[in-house]
Formats: sequence, structure tokens, C-alpha cells
Amino acid sequence: MKRTLKVGVIGLGFFGSRHARIYADHPAAELIAVCDRDPARVRLAAEETGARGFEDFRALLTLPGIDAVSICLPDRLHEDAAIASAEAGKTILLEKPLAHESGAARRILAAVEKNGARMMVGHILRFDPRYVQTFHAAAPERLGTPLHVRAKRNGIRSTAKRLGSSSSILFYMGVHDVDAMQWIARSRIHRVYAQKVEVLGNGNEDALYAVVNFQNGAIGSIDYSWAWPDGLMNGFRSSLEIVGTKAAAYLDCTEQGLYVVEDGGTSGGDTHLWPEINGHIAGDLAGELDHFVKASLSGKPYVQDYREAFDAIPVLDALAESARTGLPVTVAR
Amino acid sequence: MKRTLKVGVIGLGFFGSRHARIYADHPAAELIAVCDRDPARVRLAAEETGARGFEDFRALLTLPGIDAVSICLPDRLHEDAAIASAEAGKTILLEKPLAHESGAARRILAAVEKNGARMMVGHILRFDPRYVQTFHAAAPERLGTPLHVRAKRNGIRSTAKRLGSSSSILFYMGVHDVDAMQWIARSRIHRVYAQKVEVLGNGNEDALYAVVNFQNGAIGSIDYSWAWPDGLMNGFRSSLEIVGTKAAAYLDCTEQGLYVVEDGGTSGGDTHLWPEINGHIAGDLAGELDHFVKASLSGKPYVQDYREAFDAIPVLDALAESARTGLPVTVAR
Amino acid sequence: MKRTLKVGVIGLGFFGSRHARIYADHPAAELIAVCDRDPARVRLAAEETGARGFEDFRALLTLPGIDAVSICLPDRLHEDAAIASAEAGKTILLEKPLAHESGAARRILAAVEKNGARMMVGHILRFDPRYVQTFHAAAPERLGTPLHVRAKRNGIRSTAKRLGSSSSILFYMGVHDVDAMQWIARSRIHRVYAQKVEVLGNGNEDALYAVVNFQNGAIGSIDYSWAWPDGLMNGFRSSLEIVGTKAAAYLDCTEQGLYVVEDGGTSGGDTHLWPEINGHIAGDLAGELDHFVKASLSGKPYVQDYREAFDAIPVLDALAESARTGLPVTVAR
Amino acid sequence: MKRTLKVGVIGLGFFGSRHARIYADHPAAELIAVCDRDPARVRLAAEETGARGFEDFRALLTLPGIDAVSICLPDRLHEDAAIASAEAGKTILLEKPLAHESGAARRILAAVEKNGARMMVGHILRFDPRYVQTFHAAAPERLGTPLHVRAKRNGIRSTAKRLGSSSSILFYMGVHDVDAMQWIARSRIHRVYAQKVEVLGNGNEDALYAVVNFQNGAIGSIDYSWAWPDGLMNGFRSSLEIVGTKAAAYLDCTEQGLYVVEDGGTSGGDTHLWPEINGHIAGDLAGELDHFVKASLSGKPYVQDYREAFDAIPVLDALAESARTGLPVTVAR
Repeated sequence: MKRTLKVGVIGLGFFGSRHARIYADHPAAELIAVCDRDPARVRLAAEETGARGFEDFRALLTLPGIDAVSICLPDRLHEDAAIASAEAGKTILLEKPLAHESGAARRILAAVEKNGARMMVGHILRFDPRYVQTFHAAAPERLGTPLHVRAKRNGIRSTAKRLGSSSSILFYMGVHDVDAMQWIARSRIHRVYAQKVEVLGNGNEDALYAVVNFQNGAIGSIDYSWAWPDGLMNGFRSSLEIVGTKAAAYLDCTEQGLYVVEDGGTSGGDTHLWPEINGHIAGDLAGELDHFVKASLSGKPYVQDYREAFDAIPVLDALAESARTGLPVTVAR
Repeated sequence: MKRTLKVGVIGLGFFGSRHARIYADHPAAELIAVCDRDPARVRLAAEETGARGFEDFRALLTLPGIDAVSICLPDRLHEDAAIASAEAGKTILLEKPLAHESGAARRILAAVEKNGARMMVGHILRFDPRYVQTFHAAAPERLGTPLHVRAKRNGIRSTAKRLGSSSSILFYMGVHDVDAMQWIARSRIHRVYAQKVEVLGNGNEDALYAVVNFQNGAIGSIDYSWAWPDGLMNGFRSSLEIVGTKAAAYLDCTEQGLYVVEDGGTSGGDTHLWPEINGHIAGDLAGELDHFVKASLSGKPYVQDYREAFDAIPVLDALAESARTGLPVTVAR
Repeated sequence: MKRTLKVGVIGLGFFGSRHARIYADHPAAELIAVCDRDPARVRLAAEETGARGFEDFRALLTLPGIDAVSICLPDRLHEDAAIASAEAGKTILLEKPLAHESGAARRILAAVEKNGARMMVGHILRFDPRYVQTFHAAAPERLGTPLHVRAKRNGIRSTAKRLGSSSSILFYMGVHDVDAMQWIARSRIHRVYAQKVEVLGNGNEDALYAVVNFQNGAIGSIDYSWAWPDGLMNGFRSSLEIVGTKAAAYLDCTEQGLYVVEDGGTSGGDTHLWPEINGHIAGDLAGELDHFVKASLSGKPYVQDYREAFDAIPVLDALAESARTGLPVTVAR
Repeated sequence: MKRTLKVGVIGLGFFGSRHARIYADHPAAELIAVCDRDPARVRLAAEETGARGFEDFRALLTLPGIDAVSICLPDRLHEDAAIASAEAGKTILLEKPLAHESGAARRILAAVEKNGARMMVGHILRFDPRYVQTFHAAAPERLGTPLHVRAKRNGIRSTAKRLGSSSSILFYMGVHDVDAMQWIARSRIHRVYAQKVEVLGNGNEDALYAVVNFQNGAIGSIDYSWAWPDGLMNGFRSSLEIVGTKAAAYLDCTEQGLYVVEDGGTSGGDTHLWPEINGHIAGDLAGELDHFVKASLSGKPYVQDYREAFDAIPVLDALAESARTGLPVTVAR
């Protein structure tokens, strides 16, 4: 007999509904509450999981016995929910990005620290075997000193259209790679230069290319776009490579090893992020929540300190500023 | 608070040591016993996990409170351990293959059924996202009627040499694909023809090619070898494809999306079977044991009935007989 | 100033029209005649290339000054045209397969030898960098003794439907791989076993799987199908691998390194066989015809002796017989 | 009977020796002279091809009957040889880059134009099926308006060490991609920003990342490095992608479809650039020289005007300046 973590999920969109299913399936977690401002989503999730439904996250936070919350809201709503959860003393899993800009991120951190709350940010690549093994291959004793690091994350237009102006490619997709580059290169980015194109009409950049400098002397290249046609195999492409003085490592998520052929064409499938296996969600997202549950119960540190998650936000701000001004920008820390 | 499954692991080789680590890490399992005839292995596993050590599996089976065992012994030792475990009323996870030939397999099944024990066979591909999604893509409403099915599983010579005469490529590797082909094609193989080569001097075939017929009219092709040079990227190659009257699906495990480059060459890595992620074993094997623990506790059926695992054994026997006689062989059921 | 080879092309379908364009473009060839029973095709090719048009190949063969012919007719018409060309003393490039069955192949050879004609058979894989380099990698001093060899050639249903009953997968596609396997393994196939499926209703097998034995002790596996859905990336898949006692080599033509992404899906392209480059046909087919022209002019031997091309035909016959009878068949030589 | 092009090759290093072999093999070319300052190389090439040997290119240029020259010298020696050849009225195939900086490039162009000479620059990607087909896929009616374009060209350290300070990654490798990007995007680069790392001690940058802007509004990303460990599969990686408002295309030269497996590892092979096929050099380089010979004889335009080759040089200069100053640079045209 072991103790379980009593969890509530705030926000029941693409990610929140998956968080809810994974907790409901986890032997050391109890999903006791779900929340969304859309009553239909609440009803559906409550029926599926047996959790109690809420439309207001502040009400959810007052539920007796709740230990932890997953916050899966749109970027701009992270601040309110995270601060309220911290003030309520809850353990927090905050979906990435930590916040939609540095100021909000700083206020969240202050609330967490003031209230002695624990928080983990949902940087899923920290649980992807390809990225984690690249991190290990890039250990100084194997790689030597990092020389250059390149990351790519590309998606399709229908994602951009679905998210409209509620997120941007920088914050929705880009935060993954800025975090991964700093984590794997063991160094922080201190200077950036970016150019962008806007074409889909959602008020944000649709593609952004950047060159960056790390504190340890390495250079970096960033390639973000969600302007690809919808027929892109698997719906996205991501890759990362790092070359050091002794060795190099690279990963490429284009090839997933799975193909379906119909008269209309060949398509792929997700075999890593959140594949459905025998009625359950497996893969990286399940691994991330498993870690959150276990480390929250045991009191051990999370694999990523939230201050490392925070370290990505000023880089995103600097990229946005450089793309706007057309000049190199030093990252404000 | 939920109940946990108290487990013992019998055999602490490559697979058994991984089973032990995964149970020790699972919130709904308690690893309370480990067993191997090598005292050094027992001591090591006991120290790492806190489980009690045994050199004799019969002693382990008498330990009070033990609910379930993982049997991870060489193929030829499966029969004794599985029958003893069934007679002791334990819930059994038996690493594949079910047995080293049909007779032993039948005796294991008889013991399980006579004693009302529950048993799951460790067919890991049932937990691999690539195979499971291929199974779904091959559903009759998507694929139509299966026409042809091909499976490949190739390994390197050092594996063959390490296992020596304790297993054969047919039973060690081949059982995976015979099970997968019958599962994904939704039909059983009833006739086989095989040819083999022997070259590594361990008394077994080192490569075997076969053509098979399914009861539903589809034809099949099988490609087994562990005669590849040790420098094979990732150490193995496996693939499966199925073409039906309406659609087709294929998977290829050659590409894993991860590469390390050193002066001596480019190498890959395992990103699916049992990758180390943040100090834990993740991937398919962890998914398999998670299912075993949960379904054992809940009483729900395992994703694979052991009779389906049994269905692969007479096919292996027939393949061996055909390779020996040079003639087509009808599978004895 | 160098002498040129005066050439006529007989048959202006998919291959013949390409032969005509390549000769017209070749500095050491003069395309002086084209022939097809369809007057529209003749008119078009004559206009494009300046060659003289014929509807009857026997008339073409009487054209003064003609040195050589490319025969690009349906398989069953090879015999008449090849024998007539040999009797007219022409140098012959005969598109594969040499003939549609062993008897016809033998009669063609007899005519060629009786008349002292030169003949090359259009086995394009002998000019594909991937196959040629695999042949070199499989040299005994690098590979050791061959142990197992596997070849795959798969196409799409619309090809099968287009060719209807005028060819079969064995002769249209399969001859490539039987020749390649014997060439690369440096040994002839002497025993075969095959199973087939028929589904597209053109009176021939649509997929055939086989296991074969080579005279040098190696075993082989063959995988032919043109039952894939039309959306298969690039429209075909082919691969070949050979494992020896010292090393191994494999090629895979699935990946061509070129992708076009549209809203409807991702598609590939041919980068090796006969790609259009700057208004010309480049790649393997151009290389094959370049070799034919040069070796015909210089009198040097062709890279493939026609007796090696002949060696593939009895294997195809044996595969067809085995698929019909369900029994292993010894290749009649 | 057709006229032939009488050719001399100046410089017999890696490229020059291949040019010589290809001309010697070409039915419309006669290799009548070879030149290198190393007498051993001259002797070897003269023996192999029957051409007359020179150690001074000015002497070669006075040889009666010579129509054309291939200039395959180190970058910094292009200017002298190209101007002398133009003044001698020869038709010139100048290996890329046109020159090692803009000033030299302009002087070469002036000499060519003043003397009415014809010149083609050896941009081999214009003859690579993957790049040419990407160019066609990027036609405005298929792609729409280009949004973003990315190019990568990476090599290994031993190449950097072999070339030492005689070239730089920008001019040796980079000119390929700047030309390809401008060609495929149908627009010129007008603004650049670059960062570099130096580590191999040859006095030049060893890796350079850049972001660029095209006149048509597209943005670009450039990734150059020859700092990869020598074990990189195939010894290099190159790729290019272009995303437009309607479609997208990408190529990846990492996968060549050919693998050799030995105990020490898996290696690949070149199947496109200059593979050896049946004793001859085939592939892109042979296609490039074939075009040069035919267009020189026919008087038709070369597929690439040398002014397009020139257009790449100021971009390289601007990249070098930006990497030096750390600021965005406008390309001087």
C-alpha cells in the first residue's frame, strides 16, 4: 500500500484532456477534479474519469484533499492560475511555456517561492528518449566542448490557424527548443538575432530563423515555422544537433518508422509523444506525468528545476525583439 | 491508497535484471524477491532493490505474500519454473518464448489451467507503438482483406555467440514476429517452408528464410538472421509490412532518429524497447510490465491471451522441421 | 571526329520513348529510325527527334546504314523482333526481360550466336550506383562467403492494371532482382519455393514470396508485389541485402532524399532511374544506353554478358512452377 | 560523324583528376592536355589518358587546337588562370567558386566579356537530380510565394585539415548553397547576419550559422560546418528546404540508400556526386561535364549563366564581414 497524489486538471483542451486520462490511469495518482470554462468538456471528462467537475479553477483549488494541479490553459492565462495555485499551497505541473512573457514568468516564480510551493514545468522533451539520450551523448567527457547547436521545430498551417492569436510559434513551439538547446549544450544563450515572416494572418510570426550565441562560446541556429502545408508527413518536423570538439550527436524526429499507405498517399504516425497503446496514452507525456507524480510523492527534485524553464523565457523575448527591430539583441537576465 | 502487487523475479540476466528495476520503480508493484542461481547477481539485485534474494526459485515461491512472478530464465528452463509457479497459484509473467517447443508449451498451459493461475507471456511488440499502431491500421475496415505480410528480425553475431546453444534464432527472436504476423493479419499460419544457414558453430541455424500461408489466404515471408556483423547500426533491424485489398501499413525499426558521431563512425541508439530515461527504464518493456501489474491487480484480461502466445509455438516447430527436411510442412495445431 | 552508332528504336511505349530521347541526345549515337504499330506515337517521336518513322520493325531493319536497335516491345514480342534483328546482323539492346519464358530466350540466343550478332539485355540495375556499389562491397575479399541474400521489388496497383495481362510481376519486375541476386552473390540459384496471391484480376500473380538456394550454399528470399495502394511514396519500393561471413551490405531505394509537401500529403520522386534534368533524361537508363553505344562502337564487352541475363529466365520459370504446384522446384539449366 | 571539343584540364587535384577522366571517356570530347605544377600528377594523368602534360598553364593555353579548358585550381589561383584562358579565347569551365572574393570575380567577368569568351562555373548542384527537381517543385505555380528557405552543408574535420588555409568553408562549401538558395527561391539575398566558430586552427571559420533576407521577402537560414568528426556517415550532410504559400519541398542528402556493415560499424556511400560505375565516373559531375561539352559545341546557353554564379560571391563576402563584425550586413551588388 502506497500513498497516492490527489490531482486536479485545470483546462481540458488538447493537453488537459490527455493529462486527465493519464492521471486517471496512474496507480499512484487519483484524479479528483477537472476544470474548464466549457461545461461540455467538464461533463465529458468527469464522466470518463469519475473526477468532480468545475468551471472555475478557484473553486477547484478549495476542494479538500487536493494535493496537486496540472495547469493546461492557454499561455496568457498561466499567470493567474499558477499564482492562485501557489497561494493555495498546491504542487503544480504547469504546461509549457512557463508564461507568455518574462514579467509574468517572474511573478509566477515569486509566488511559488513565497508560498513554498513545488512546481514543475511541462518540458516534454526532457522525457523523450531521443532528446534525453542526446543530452547524455553531449556530456563533456564524450562531446568535448560544444561548438555549434542547431534546433528545428516545424508544424503545419492548420495548427497555426487553430491556435489563432492565443499563442505564437515562439512561445507555443519555440520554448521546447530554447530549453533543449540550453540543457543539452550546458550553457545559456546570451545574444540572439532573428528574422521572421508573417503570412497566415493571425497577428504573429509564422516562421522565424535565428542565430544565437551561448555563454560557453558555441553558436546556435534556430528554425521555427508553422507555415508548412497540412500534408507534411506526421504533421511536424523537429530535429536537434550538437557538434563538439570530440564528438557530435543528432536526432531527427521526421522518421518515426511507421507508415500507412492508401490510394491517396503515404502518411506517418506519432510513435513517441503521446501514442495510444491498448487504450492508454503512452510515450513521453505519460513519462512526464509519471515523473511528476512520483517525485511529488517522494519529495525528490524534479528532473528540471523551474528556474531552468524560466531561463528560456528571456531568450524568447529577445528573439521576438530582434525579429521586430532587425538588430542583434542581448538577452536580459 | 491502492493495493499493490507483490512480485518476485526469477532469473536475473539481461531481461530479469530489467524486470526487477522496473518493478522496483512501479508505484503499484512491490518487488519483494529476486532469484538467480548466480549468488553474485542475487546479491547485486537485492542490494539495489531491497528485495530478498534466492538461489532456488522453489524457495522463492514459498515466500509468504508473493502474488506474482516474472520468469526470465533461458527458454529450456521455462517449463519447470512456470509449472511450479502455476502450482503455487502465482500470477505469472513468462518472458517469451512461452516454451522451447510445443510439448513443453502444452504442459505449461495445462498446469496454468488446472491450477486456475493467471499468465501473460512477454510479447513486447504488443506494447511497441509501431507494432500496435500497425495492428490498428490493419483493421479490416481500413486494410480490407490481407494479401501479403512480411516480417524481418535481424541481429548481430555477438548476440548469437553470447546465447550460444541456450536458445536459437527461431525461438529467441522469431517468436516475436510469428506472433506479430498472426496478430496483425488476424489469422493463423497453417503451412510453412523454410531454408536455413548455419555458420557460427553454435549448433543452431543462424539465418532462416521462410514463406508461409495464412488461413485467410494471405501469404507471408519471414526473414531471420543473427549473422550480421557487429557494426550493424543499433545492433538489430526489424520491420513488418502488411498489404491488403484497400490499404497497407509498414514499420521499420532501422531508423530510430538518434545518431552519435565519433571519429570511428556513426552509431544509433534504442529509443523504443528499454531506453534509460532519467535513471529509469522507459519504453516498451516498462509499458508491458505496467500492463501486467495493473491488469493483474484489476482482474481485467491481459492484452494478449496466452493461447495466442501458444499459437506461435507450433509455427516455430514447423519452420524448424521444414528447414531440416527441405519440404513444406503443415502446422500441427 | 569519332564514328557514331546509327540506331533504331523498336517500340515507343514507356521505355522506347525514353530510349529514343536518350539516343537523340547522345553525341556518339544517331537516332535514325523509330518504330511502333501506333502511327501517332511514330509521328510524335519522328517529329521530336528527326528520325524516320516505321510501323513495321522488319521495314526498319532494312534501312541502309542502321547499326543497332533498341527493342522495347512487350515481353511476348521480344522473340520475333530479336531474332529478326539478329538475322539482319544488327547490334541489339533488348529491354529486359530477355524473353517471357525459357524457350523463347533460348531461341533468341541461338539466333544471336548463329548470326554473330552482338546483344546486350537492358538490366538497368547494372548501371544503378546503389546496386553496382553493393556488388563491389560484396566482393569475396570484403564480404567473405555469402550467407543470405534478400531482394524486394514492389509497385502499385495502377502499374499492374496498366500492363494488364501483357506482362506479369515475375517477368516485368522480378527479372531485375533474380539477375541482381545472382550477380551480387556470384552464384546461380538452383532451387526455389514460391507462393503467390492473385487479386487484381489480370490473370497473373499480383504478389509472390519465395525462398531460394544458391549453388554456393547461400539462401535467398524474394519479395515481389504490385498490389500496393497507389499512394505508395515514389510508387515503388525496392531493396537488396547480402550478409557474408565477414561483412554485409544493403541498399534501400525507398528513401530518395527528395520530398514535395502539399496540403494533400507528402510525395517523393525518382532521383536515380530516369530523372529529368535540365530537359534531358539522366540517371541509370542514360548510363545504360551510354554504355551500349560506347561498347558497341569500341567492340569491348558489355558489362553484362547476355548469358547472365539468360540465367535469370529459368529461375523465373521455376518460381512460376513452384507457385503453381506448391512444391519446391529445381531450376532447369 | 560529329565534331568534338578539344579540352585541357588545369589542376589535377581531387576535381581536376576527375574532370580529366570524364573528358577522356566522353565521346564528344578529346582530352588533349593536362596541367599541374606537380610533375608526378602530370605524368600519371598523361599516361592514363594519352593527353599531353604541362606544368605551366600558360604553355597549355598555346597548344594548337585546344578549344576549352577546365580550371580546377585552388580558389585563390582562379583569377590568373581564368583571365589568361579568356585572353587566349578559350571556352572555360571554371570549378566553383568563381573566385575567392568579389574583386577577383569581377576581374574574371571583365576579361571573359572583353574577349568574347564563353564560361561556365562548375555549380554541380545544378546537375543533381535532387536539387534540380526541388527547383522545379519550387516553381511559382506550384509553390506560390517563397516564405522561408534553409540550406545546410556539413563536412568532416579531415577535409578542413586537408585544405588547410587554401580555402574556407564559406568559399569551398558555402558557395554551393548560396547559389542554390538564390536559384531555387528565384530571388537574390540582400541582407545577412552570421556568427562563426574557429577551432581547427587553419585560420578560417570552421562553422558558420546565418540568417538572410531575400529581395522577394523570404527569409533564409544557412548552416555551414566542417567541424564534424570523421566518422560522419558519408562524410557529409547537406539538405535544402523551401516553404511557400501553396506547397513546400525539401531534399536531404544524408540518406543515400546504400550501407556497408562491418564489425567496426555501418558506413554509407556516395550515390550521386561522382560514383564509380563499371570503371567510369558517373553521377552529377559527369552530367555537368556532359552539358559543358554539348553546349560548348552547339553554342546553346549553359544552364547557369556565369552572372548567376557571380551573384553568390558578394553574399559570401557579406557573410564573412557579418561574422567578423557581429552586425547585419547589406550585400553590396
